[in-house]
Amino acid sequence: MGMRYIEGGVCAAAGFSASGVHCGIRKNRTKKDLALIVSSTRAAAAACYTTNLVKGAPLVVTAQNLADGHAQAVVCNSGNANTCNANGIEIATGMCRLVEQATGIAASDVVVASTGVIGQAMTLAPFETGIPAAAAALAPGGGEAAAEAIMTTDTVKKELAVEFTVGGKVCRMGGIAKGSGMIHPNMATMLVFITTDAAICPAMLQKALSADVPDSFNMISIDGDTSTNDMVTVLANGQAGNEEITGEGADYDAFCEALAAVTRPLCRAIAKDGEGATKLLECTVTGAADTAAAKAVAKSVICSSLFKAAMFGADANWGRVLCAIGYSGAAVDVNAVDVAFESAAGTIAVCKNGAGLGFSEEKAKEILLESEIRVCIALHQGEAEATAWGCDLTYDYVKINGDYRT
Amino acid sequence: MGMRYIEGGVCAAAGFSASGVHCGIRKNRTKKDLALIVSSTRAAAAACYTTNLVKGAPLVVTAQNLADGHAQAVVCNSGNANTCNANGIEIATGMCRLVEQATGIAASDVVVASTGVIGQAMTLAPFETGIPAAAAALAPGGGEAAAEAIMTTDTVKKELAVEFTVGGKVCRMGGIAKGSGMIHPNMATMLVFITTDAAICPAMLQKALSADVPDSFNMISIDGDTSTNDMVTVLANGQAGNEEITGEGADYDAFCEALAAVTRPLCRAIAKDGEGATKLLECTVTGAADTAAAKAVAKSVICSSLFKAAMFGADANWGRVLCAIGYSGAAVDVNAVDVAFESAAGTIAVCKNGAGLGFSEEKAKEILLESEIRVCIALHQGEAEATAWGCDLTYDYVKINGDYRT
Repeated sequence: MGMRYIEGGVCAAAGFSASGVHCGIRKNRTKKDLALIVSSTRAAAAACYTTNLVKGAPLVVTAQNLADGHAQAVVCNSGNANTCNANGIEIATGMCRLVEQATGIAASDVVVASTGVIGQAMTLAPFETGIPAAAAALAPGGGEAAAEAIMTTDTVKKELAVEFTVGGKVCRMGGIAKGSGMIHPNMATMLVFITTDAAICPAMLQKALSADVPDSFNMISIDGDTSTNDMVTVLANGQAGNEEITGEGADYDAFCEALAAVTRPLCRAIAKDGEGATKLLECTVTGAADTAAAKAVAKSVICSSLFKAAMFGADANWGRVLCAIGYSGAAVDVNAVDVAFESAAGTIAVCKNGAGLGFSEEKAKEILLESEIRVCIALHQGEAEATAWGCDLTYDYVKINGDYRT
Repeated sequence: MGMRYIEGGVCAAAGFSASGVHCGIRKNRTKKDLALIVSSTRAAAAACYTTNLVKGAPLVVTAQNLADGHAQAVVCNSGNANTCNANGIEIATGMCRLVEQATGIAASDVVVASTGVIGQAMTLAPFETGIPAAAAALAPGGGEAAAEAIMTTDTVKKELAVEFTVGGKVCRMGGIAKGSGMIHPNMATMLVFITTDAAICPAMLQKALSADVPDSFNMISIDGDTSTNDMVTVLANGQAGNEEITGEGADYDAFCEALAAVTRPLCRAIAKDGEGATKLLECTVTGAADTAAAKAVAKSVICSSLFKAAMFGADANWGRVLCAIGYSGAAVDVNAVDVAFESAAGTIAVCKNGAGLGFSEEKAKEILLESEIRVCIALHQGEAEATAWGCDLTYDYVKINGDYRT
């Protein structure tokens, strides 16, 4: 009855196959740069997009294609964002047309995405051979290759899947993500593709996704830069055979719970693999007057360059946490704030009622040398809570971004 | 008649003396950590403070002391921010009392400031000998020592002065600044102390300062972190003998012009000496629909970690500029945006109408290897303009902030 994590990613759900190939967008031939995900039947589809006014051409085309609430394939390249290119729309629609030619799926049922450098000239040429090759390689075991093909500066592929029950039917949901840099989602996210065999109508699917994103992907920040190409999509092909979810209720709740079970670990995986990161940072805020305040405080701390650099150095410089709370914009009573640091090595309280506590620097160092750090903030003003995820600021972030294009 | 830059800083104006000494807040005995600035007569005084809800105790005491629009001395220590300390107010009022004992200036006429680590225990002991020593060292030539004593991770002292004319009388105005990290002013600034011998009433002095700050210090960002201890104050002792400025008009305009001539170079100096910085970045936005949009765009670009890292690497990655424009919150027509990079080595256009231009990477590299870089953004939507200042993101920023407290 309950939910459980299972092997796999975007191919965990019935009826989905995928592939990842090298088509030549990236110079390094050993790096896959084109992913294709296909459902054997047309699926309900939902998406959230970046709020950046500069939008990659693929997002514009995807939004058009999803206007009818359905899709059947996802095509995504890495190595070039297809953003700020004069011929961007032409390229993105061309990619959809090539998917139609190679698979028979209507071009208007294709989710198209690109990630990589902005404003780099691009042609359709690599796709003319690459998309047929990706179509030929489609397989139920191809999810991992697809997860690899959407990576840019990511160091690990990000995929997972769950099994859950809706109306007595066993359903599966899985997802893959590309994170790393230019990550500060705002009403949208980096690239995340989720597939499920649960049956759910497009409106409820969009509702579930739109409800999940503010608490999941929008609570991550790697570097404060909201990408032009952020997008998360879900395809639900209904092949699990449950009665279609068309309204709220137990089935919808089960679906939302499964969605959260897929998105939260992807958030942590994206944050942990932020560009140059050595540590996952999680900020939990409790006792806030309302959710907006809790989120503002959590996000402000996670975004602070000074806090991030202190965590890199395993320095319990809690004054920077207080500072970030103070400029978060939330109406916090700064004289009621408690702060503690927590990790696998233990917990240490460093600030109570807005003032410093005597604490063992040695113990604090031991806690902060772990690879997953939680900063716990208690505001003592109400009952609202929020969690945000980020990573430390390191030499390697500077190195990677000081010369990303070469 | 005109305005000209002259030697000196806070002692350039008639009647001001200053000193900088080591009193023991900082462990390194060769680093000055206590500054004192005194006017021989009581002066009109104005200030702007940080909007961070977490405020250093000295700001609270200074705001009380300036409530009557007058002050006669500034005392400032570096090495400890006196923020988030249970006894912070006690320390700050104690510093004022010690100034009164050492100089005869009423404690309620003292501007008190602290800068350094937040939440570090502090006692009055170092000041009990330090403030008398600073008072004994007061001299018309002590401005430079005061500028040194307020430095934290700053690598160069920041001071300058101008001579200008009000109502036929020659006046002088000078200032010193402390910048470096946790710099993202918002309705206030880092520590800046300005002195002048012009006669101006407290209300017009505050008006002039409040009008200047939104275009000067509030347009700097080193790292996006709004400090708890930001403050800028101006003391005007009237010793130049001009007729007191009590309303708008030519005299007020001349005063504002002089103020801008002092604040703008201090802004550039603070940005150029940002923590770990190797380059001053200046972002000029023209053709905006309104000033708010121009400022939002300029500030967004200057704050982007990705843009800052690209400038460190002398990489003409203009897509990151477009990205930051897109998430600035301003209603920009992204298809009308032009971008160029400029420095002492020349100018290069890299983006027109929101799309990339072919350009020489070699020439771009040459331009971006200079130490002062201007990114010029034309929005083609109106007549409004803005300028913001920042610095590159470097290995040294991470190094300095990975272990600031030790």
